[in-house]
Amino acid sequence: MRLSKYFLKTSKTVSDEDKSVSAKLLKQAGFIRESVAGRFYFLPIGQRVQQKIMAIIKEEMDLADCQEMITPVLHPLELWEETNRTHTAGFELTKIKDRRGAEFVLGGTAEEMFVDLVRQYKLSYRDLPFHLYQFSSKFRDELRARGGLLRVREFIMKDGYSFHKDETDFKIEYEKIKKVYTKIFERLGLSTTIIEADNGYIGGEYCHEFVVESEIGESKYFVSTDNSYAAHEDVALFEKENKNINDKIEQLEEVSAVRGKTMEDGATLHGLPLWQQIKDVLFVDETDRFVLAIIRGDLDINETKLKNLLKITSLRHATDDEIRDKIKSEPGFISPVKIKDNIDKQINLIIISDDSLRTIVNAYGGSNKKDRDMLNVNIDRDFQPDIEGDIALAKDGYKAVNNAGQLCEKRGVEVGNIFQLGYYYSEKMKGAIYVDADGKEKPFYMGCYGIGIGRTMATIVEKHHDQKGMIWPEKVSPFRAHLISLEGAKDETDKLYNQMIDNCIDVLYDDRDKTAGEKFADADLIGLPVRIVISKKTLLQQSVELKRRDNTEPELVLLTSIIDRLS
Amino acid sequence: MRLSKYFLKTSKTVSDEDKSVSAKLLKQAGFIRESVAGRFYFLPIGQRVQQKIMAIIKEEMDLADCQEMITPVLHPLELWEETNRTHTAGFELTKIKDRRGAEFVLGGTAEEMFVDLVRQYKLSYRDLPFHLYQFSSKFRDELRARGGLLRVREFIMKDGYSFHKDETDFKIEYEKIKKVYTKIFERLGLSTTIIEADNGYIGGEYCHEFVVESEIGESKYFVSTDNSYAAHEDVALFEKENKNINDKIEQLEEVSAVRGKTMEDGATLHGLPLWQQIKDVLFVDETDRFVLAIIRGDLDINETKLKNLLKITSLRHATDDEIRDKIKSEPGFISPVKIKDNIDKQINLIIISDDSLRTIVNAYGGSNKKDRDMLNVNIDRDFQPDIEGDIALAKDGYKAVNNAGQLCEKRGVEVGNIFQLGYYYSEKMKGAIYVDADGKEKPFYMGCYGIGIGRTMATIVEKHHDQKGMIWPEKVSPFRAHLISLEGAKDETDKLYNQMIDNCIDVLYDDRDKTAGEKFADADLIGLPVRIVISKKTLLQQSVELKRRDNTEPELVLLTSIIDRLS
Repeated sequence: MRLSKYFLKTSKTVSDEDKSVSAKLLKQAGFIRESVAGRFYFLPIGQRVQQKIMAIIKEEMDLADCQEMITPVLHPLELWEETNRTHTAGFELTKIKDRRGAEFVLGGTAEEMFVDLVRQYKLSYRDLPFHLYQFSSKFRDELRARGGLLRVREFIMKDGYSFHKDETDFKIEYEKIKKVYTKIFERLGLSTTIIEADNGYIGGEYCHEFVVESEIGESKYFVSTDNSYAAHEDVALFEKENKNINDKIEQLEEVSAVRGKTMEDGATLHGLPLWQQIKDVLFVDETDRFVLAIIRGDLDINETKLKNLLKITSLRHATDDEIRDKIKSEPGFISPVKIKDNIDKQINLIIISDDSLRTIVNAYGGSNKKDRDMLNVNIDRDFQPDIEGDIALAKDGYKAVNNAGQLCEKRGVEVGNIFQLGYYYSEKMKGAIYVDADGKEKPFYMGCYGIGIGRTMATIVEKHHDQKGMIWPEKVSPFRAHLISLEGAKDETDKLYNQMIDNCIDVLYDDRDKTAGEKFADADLIGLPVRIVISKKTLLQQSVELKRRDNTEPELVLLTSIIDRLS
Repeated sequence: MRLSKYFLKTSKTVSDEDKSVSAKLLKQAGFIRESVAGRFYFLPIGQRVQQKIMAIIKEEMDLADCQEMITPVLHPLELWEETNRTHTAGFELTKIKDRRGAEFVLGGTAEEMFVDLVRQYKLSYRDLPFHLYQFSSKFRDELRARGGLLRVREFIMKDGYSFHKDETDFKIEYEKIKKVYTKIFERLGLSTTIIEADNGYIGGEYCHEFVVESEIGESKYFVSTDNSYAAHEDVALFEKENKNINDKIEQLEEVSAVRGKTMEDGATLHGLPLWQQIKDVLFVDETDRFVLAIIRGDLDINETKLKNLLKITSLRHATDDEIRDKIKSEPGFISPVKIKDNIDKQINLIIISDDSLRTIVNAYGGSNKKDRDMLNVNIDRDFQPDIEGDIALAKDGYKAVNNAGQLCEKRGVEVGNIFQLGYYYSEKMKGAIYVDADGKEKPFYMGCYGIGIGRTMATIVEKHHDQKGMIWPEKVSPFRAHLISLEGAKDETDKLYNQMIDNCIDVLYDDRDKTAGEKFADADLIGLPVRIVISKKTLLQQSVELKRRDNTEPELVLLTSIIDRLS
């Protein structure tokens, strides 16, 4: 491709408020351009990269016996109502009404569509398992779009859905796709970590993210020092070691406590360790129910864990007024002890206790009265949580479970994810069944699997660039070589260009009327694996200058052997 | 691909109200499945065909120096407002509001998007011309979806947009794309006719459709007997020969005319030829303006021509009450003569005359009064049209213009179209300019070019099928060969299947536990170019039975030579 004819316009700078290197470089090099926030044009050279990424994914998916197909972009709203996802996916969903009044969803994922397709056939156990996938536009009505292709409102996703007769069969596929994805990302130049993650609005019981370690990433996760455990912050477990569990249980005591509202104020006042204190946080959920979350004083609450334990989708902190007027308690002095005794009957309050409260005895904390604290508070005896579980926020250095060492905090970009769906969809959607060998109708056991193409492209740039520009891995590079003719070498370069084309070498030829400096800067910015320069000087030696983008040392190669060298 | 593992479910019948063969066969053979009316799943085997079609189009477009890229699916509404297409595209447009209140259009075409992209760069005449294209989902909020993939609400379109410095440069591209498209359709197994057409809501001055002759098609068009002229009904010209133009002009006369309301009633009553009568049709346009269209009595009005002449987008017939109350005339007795004299000043009435009224003198017709007619009505003397032009409906057998013989009526499917856009978009969209050699800023001269992928796929089936099923042309066939093992030949067939895979022969292997009859029926229905059957009988001769789908004669081919035969 001749640059003079190519719709590729680089720019020296980009006015960009966001901090991601990939956004800057991809825009500056003319690979992408924003339409409106979070919606991008992929320009011809950017589209080439996107297509190479998709081709590699397709190759590996097909090799793994997955079958490509395509669903409509508009999903009938009633399908999402069948699974109640119009509610759980919430405001990320874009809805449309056509002129006949039919309502649709611009899908963020397509579970309902695939189930609706599959249930239209009378399938038997002999038809199982199968794994269908597509590359299609996905939509997320994100409040904030940022980081170029890293968080967008519209993108192409490879999404796959597998159907199985049971969990055993599903698990084979799930483990297979872990390997397939790892290989795909390796071929794309990305080293991924598979971490346990929260499944968001997808449903199902467990899922994994494929993350590429990067400071720009939005996924905070932990890897144990022995590498045997990796999990997203929102699901990461850690060892909550016993503290004073063997101490003698003392009698509950209410004491005066003229203090501030923080945990530290309490610890200082009573001269007791932070971990012995009970931390109380009052939330309000989407049904206006009050949720009192309590945890050991040295730990923090992870709201995602809390929401999952409660099977709810949104939480907010209660206001001071609500604490006083509705719960009849006092900010900074909330306590689970007898808290339900004082409130009106129509107020719904639920107490959720982190299991860390089982690691201490004789705890202390507020008394639901200003300037009064309780000492020697003990679970079961003094308060009874409605639900107990893990709602604690993991932190760097915490002890990993299963003697796996310590948790080490990392940040990364989520480039892919895989979900166990189990019967989540097939039980909600009528007729999503197969006939088993025993003649009985049974729901499908399902999984789903996604890779965001644009985000993967951006992540490749995040991992492969330097000060001057991008450094494309060979397999996803838009072209193989960047050919530059300097002054006085046009004819020879034209000749070489034609030879390269004849030899099927994918080359970008900078034949523009620009200075050497401009051409070199653009070559570095665009970042093709190999740069070939022909000048009067190199021609004196019947040679070209060849330089790899990932290497600073140029070398002279004879004109007669450059084609062989590149083939 | 083993059929036992493939998500391909054929059915014996399809309950389908629509009459198109392609819809029936594609559904029955499991290539497509409807989600809701006009929105289709492409199942794995259908997606293979779609991808092969796209690959051929891409290959030819790239060869013709066109550059693939991609735009967002959601188009900012304000871009469509800049060109006023929110109004002209009317109800075919689907609009969306996101949760921040930003409004978008689900695009049916993407002119505004491409212009908006291109105008963001400071381009000069040196950057021109270029031709950008994409494959992307398009949306049409059609009232009726029908014919399977022939008229849908959502489909993949290859849409291209070219940018030029002037008309001369554009015309080179326009003629080039005519050849490229013709070649593309030939490679896809379709013979196309290029016809002049109406440009609908796209804008610009002229355009052409690529039609494949077929009774199922929605495009009615005419080809002259000498083949030099081809045009869609909505733009087709014909020769309106002079009738009594040399007769002496007689005096206008009003006579009693107790008659019915039809044209024939008038001709019978006065004993005069139909062509001498004036046909008056009263319409109301989108601005509530009355439009009196008049034409020679033996001709009919083409409403698209009328709308284009008036530059309006919608028309409806006036009611009898409107004719009487607003126009002070009488149904069946409307006349252009003095019709404006009696109506209220606030009523807006415009008279449009077909140029056929210049081919007659001493015409007759109504008088705007019940049971009274006028004789010897002459244009200019007795009435003055506001606009004169061609609003006549062409019909089979009419004389073609330029001595090209007669018009021959045909029906066809529009599989592609190309549009001169000229300055239509670049003059409406601010900044859609380049800097010319003279240093002046000038608007781009543009064209656009589209091929509907799904409709093309359906048209291939319309042209290539028989009673038993589809007959895929080699180049777009989902697989090369259909391999069938009959009872007692499983091991040998498995072996051959593996050999074929090793030799990169794209094969669909029917390894299912079905009867020979069922397997043969499915093979005919699916319609791969070659069927290979292995049975105990063929194995006796160390052979397979090979049959081409487009031929009834099977032949025996030695097992040892079948791979060579297919390679």
